[in-house]
Amino acid sequence: MAEPPAEQSKSALKKAEKQAKMAAEKAAKAAKQSLAVVGGKKTDDIIGITVSKSQNFSAWYQEVVLKAEMIDYYNEISGFFILRPASMYIWNTIRKWFQERIEAMEVEEASFPMFLSSKSLEKEKDHVEGFAPELAWVTKAGDKDLEVPVAVRPTSEAVMYPYFSKWIRSHRDLPLRLNQWNSVVRWEAKQTTPFLRAREFLWQEGHTAHLTEELAGEEVLQILELYAGVYEQLLAVPVVRGRKTEKEKFAGGYYTTTVEGYIPSNGRGIQGATSHCLGQNFSKMFDITVEDPAPKAGEGAKHIHVWQNSWGLSTRVIGVMVMIHGDDKGLVLPPRIARLQVIIIPVGINKNTSPEDKTKHYDKLQELKDSLKKAGVRVDYDTREGYTPAWKFNDWELKGVPLRLEYGPKDAAQSVVSFARRDTGEKGTIAISSIATEVPALLEKIQSDMYNKADAAFRSHRLVITNWDEVVPALDSKNVVLIPHCLEEKCEDRIKEITKGAPDETDGPADQKAPSMGMKSLCIPFEQPEGIVKGETKCLNPECTAFAEKWCMFGRSY
Amino acid sequence: MAEPPAEQSKSALKKAEKQAKMAAEKAAKAAKQSLAVVGGKKTDDIIGITVSKSQNFSAWYQEVVLKAEMIDYYNEISGFFILRPASMYIWNTIRKWFQERIEAMEVEEASFPMFLSSKSLEKEKDHVEGFAPELAWVTKAGDKDLEVPVAVRPTSEAVMYPYFSKWIRSHRDLPLRLNQWNSVVRWEAKQTTPFLRAREFLWQEGHTAHLTEELAGEEVLQILELYAGVYEQLLAVPVVRGRKTEKEKFAGGYYTTTVEGYIPSNGRGIQGATSHCLGQNFSKMFDITVEDPAPKAGEGAKHIHVWQNSWGLSTRVIGVMVMIHGDDKGLVLPPRIARLQVIIIPVGINKNTSPEDKTKHYDKLQELKDSLKKAGVRVDYDTREGYTPAWKFNDWELKGVPLRLEYGPKDAAQSVVSFARRDTGEKGTIAISSIATEVPALLEKIQSDMYNKADAAFRSHRLVITNWDEVVPALDSKNVVLIPHCLEEKCEDRIKEITKGAPDETDGPADQKAPSMGMKSLCIPFEQPEGIVKGETKCLNPECTAFAEKWCMFGRSY
Repeated sequence: MAEPPAEQSKSALKKAEKQAKMAAEKAAKAAKQSLAVVGGKKTDDIIGITVSKSQNFSAWYQEVVLKAEMIDYYNEISGFFILRPASMYIWNTIRKWFQERIEAMEVEEASFPMFLSSKSLEKEKDHVEGFAPELAWVTKAGDKDLEVPVAVRPTSEAVMYPYFSKWIRSHRDLPLRLNQWNSVVRWEAKQTTPFLRAREFLWQEGHTAHLTEELAGEEVLQILELYAGVYEQLLAVPVVRGRKTEKEKFAGGYYTTTVEGYIPSNGRGIQGATSHCLGQNFSKMFDITVEDPAPKAGEGAKHIHVWQNSWGLSTRVIGVMVMIHGDDKGLVLPPRIARLQVIIIPVGINKNTSPEDKTKHYDKLQELKDSLKKAGVRVDYDTREGYTPAWKFNDWELKGVPLRLEYGPKDAAQSVVSFARRDTGEKGTIAISSIATEVPALLEKIQSDMYNKADAAFRSHRLVITNWDEVVPALDSKNVVLIPHCLEEKCEDRIKEITKGAPDETDGPADQKAPSMGMKSLCIPFEQPEGIVKGETKCLNPECTAFAEKWCMFGRSY
Repeated sequence: MAEPPAEQSKSALKKAEKQAKMAAEKAAKAAKQSLAVVGGKKTDDIIGITVSKSQNFSAWYQEVVLKAEMIDYYNEISGFFILRPASMYIWNTIRKWFQERIEAMEVEEASFPMFLSSKSLEKEKDHVEGFAPELAWVTKAGDKDLEVPVAVRPTSEAVMYPYFSKWIRSHRDLPLRLNQWNSVVRWEAKQTTPFLRAREFLWQEGHTAHLTEELAGEEVLQILELYAGVYEQLLAVPVVRGRKTEKEKFAGGYYTTTVEGYIPSNGRGIQGATSHCLGQNFSKMFDITVEDPAPKAGEGAKHIHVWQNSWGLSTRVIGVMVMIHGDDKGLVLPPRIARLQVIIIPVGINKNTSPEDKTKHYDKLQELKDSLKKAGVRVDYDTREGYTPAWKFNDWELKGVPLRLEYGPKDAAQSVVSFARRDTGEKGTIAISSIATEVPALLEKIQSDMYNKADAAFRSHRLVITNWDEVVPALDSKNVVLIPHCLEEKCEDRIKEITKGAPDETDGPADQKAPSMGMKSLCIPFEQPEGIVKGETKCLNPECTAFAEKWCMFGRSY
């Protein structure tokens, strides 16, 4: 999870950040105004997204997460965000899903302090170098200076491993598997973005110790598969499983595995979540050993250093989901993680409707809700007075509710409800007698359709390329590329350099400068195309003389 | 949850802290040594608690939480503790129970940043004064000084309420009810104790806004009842519900309700959890208003300030439970919060047992486990090789497992299992044919017996006193007292002063100095004894000339 140094100059950054904030504040003001009217009197104002996803993706994203009430900006301190109930519901759904599965793996929960002494941190040199620039330092308590300043954890390897050393006394204590759900602080210099990059974020961090490399390695992949499951099964987001290059691996680790996502709107890759094998690097520094349970014949008792893993999944997943599925009407939520899966809206009720008819109609809404609830659907109806159905449609579309059911006198006459899918806009009717089976089935269909659509987009923009001249044009057409590569760090640095476009010095939004960004390696996919012959196929970088080791996925990225 | 200034001098504190730490480290070393032996070869060493609860309560407590693997000391930074899986299981059980109930009240989850700008903090004067001495200040990020230092939240009123002001635009947005599960930091100068007082602790903090005082007040009590439920129903700990005096209420609040516990071993009261009505104090400072939905006839639209509550329950609950139920063998867990409710230990299997008989016997253990699991019991067996049954008994007793089942050839012959209750030591047998009903019933009986025992202890040490001369002797006999009181802050200060014993300057553990501590008010119990006549009954403080307002519960306390 270490990040390379900032790409853009500081002044460009400040400018971009200011612009993003202004856009967001404008959006917030607009939202407040229209809602202020709503609070006071009847209104038909449309509270929608004012920017198109295709025209200004970055502004669109910021407006969606703000107006759908997922986040708010923490104006008091820059780079921090408030996660509102609409986000926390999703995060808790993911938490439950993941927690259940790691419990079955006998991972136990712990809670370590949020502060870190500089002494522990300095034990693993690569690790401290990776995190030092982003550490927040507490130097004072009350009005007194602390004798020794303490840092807020950016991750907890250095907090936990002195205790692994203390607690692991024999191979019988292995595997030791601990996980904690917490927040960490990385005081980023880069521009922050809701969910994707924040100075504080929620995550889980798992830390485990094993007797052998093989056992550690098995777990790394088991966890990676769970991370892929969070994306694919819950968020309807396709990911590519792979291994990070040496340049991009976790600071101080042995190797890093990753699930990588793709944002069709700008063609950028995005790291989804990482599962690291730390090897014996930390166990050597923190002196975590056990007596060898199977020493070689003739040899005495020998101490061996344990093999360690660490793995983390953060609230970033929510941002990726929003970016992939959202549209110009706002958020589009996959049914499995939607707090509200179905909203029922009465239509055709107006001032000419008699009070008796209205009561009767609303009783029927209650019946519809009750039978859907009984069928396990998260459902509500919207009987707010003083709002037109059209206003309500927009409001729930903005918030991403997967399925809208409309129910009016005409529907009643035919014993049906009308539906509208949020993802495709498709409309139709369902017989009331079968809603308890058809609505859940439709929700599952929406879930899989959303995944398939995103998967098709990713597949068609993952280009296998063997001619260097095609690389930059491919990036410019919003693709990521798979190229034969030597996996050397220097070569990667050079590739980033030579794939940069001319600097764009115009005053546009930061996002639109993206095309000038150089590409970096996203991962070495586990699923490798055919065609590399060892000692024969050249690394695709025209300046590189080495042979290719693997197909490596490169792209412009977050 | 504000705390009055430290009672003891700094040097006394340091001495006490050093002693506590030395004791704990000695215990840890002992634990490590005996376990190190266990790891390597067979042993019958008894890994028990080395201090008696009645002789040195404070050292006993620290040994229990350490040896039962509930916590570890965070040696890197003083005043911080690691919560190990044995604690986190309990905390998560409480979390689930409470979360379910506040969800039913339509409280939603949010996550606000952990940092606080001094600007927001300073808005409510009493509030900032209460917390300022304990704030941890971040002044540096990486190697750069922050332009404006930020504090780690000690509680989130000042973090959240600017957003309440932004989000609440109409009375239709009320009630707004948010809760977050997080950790907060209060850099205490006082001696820290695992669970009871730590510089960082886990808690939930609920923050809500309502249209009227009445609605706010209803919720304050609903939440208080849930807090009482956590203690009484889950932890088998009796509490007294009441209201804090003006002196002891939350800094900046309107009134504070509380559940108060009692530690029989030293006769001290302990605050369990608090539910505050903040009144309109914060809404006035943070400008949180709505238009009056029911203005008086003839008057124009009027803005009214919302009524706010905040309420919190922390990991302190675990410490109270340990102190009340534990004994000289270690932890005693109430079954409802025990991760392992039943441990099955094979007995009578020795080197004379044939491999076939052993296999047969162990198969039967598996059957026992399976049928208990099916009956919803959290159960395991202990078939570790190289340990005697006696050693295993001690090990599981130390860890507090509520019920031990022993199963040997003699039991097998009679188709029974032998049992031993952890709380009372009572032994008996249960027919195997009925374990699926009898074991759950026995666990529930253990739960209620534990509560009843603790409740009887509290009731018999809550003395209603109307003669001042009886007060200090009552405290010295480990009681808390209910006395007629004027509820004036100055009178409380004076009572604390005149109930102090002579300072104990000997070199004993801090805990044994407790008898010299003055008493403070714990709460004004909702359940009031008879006997106070307004304008007639005098405040019991002999130096006070005022009339008594209420029966107030006073005691030496944590």
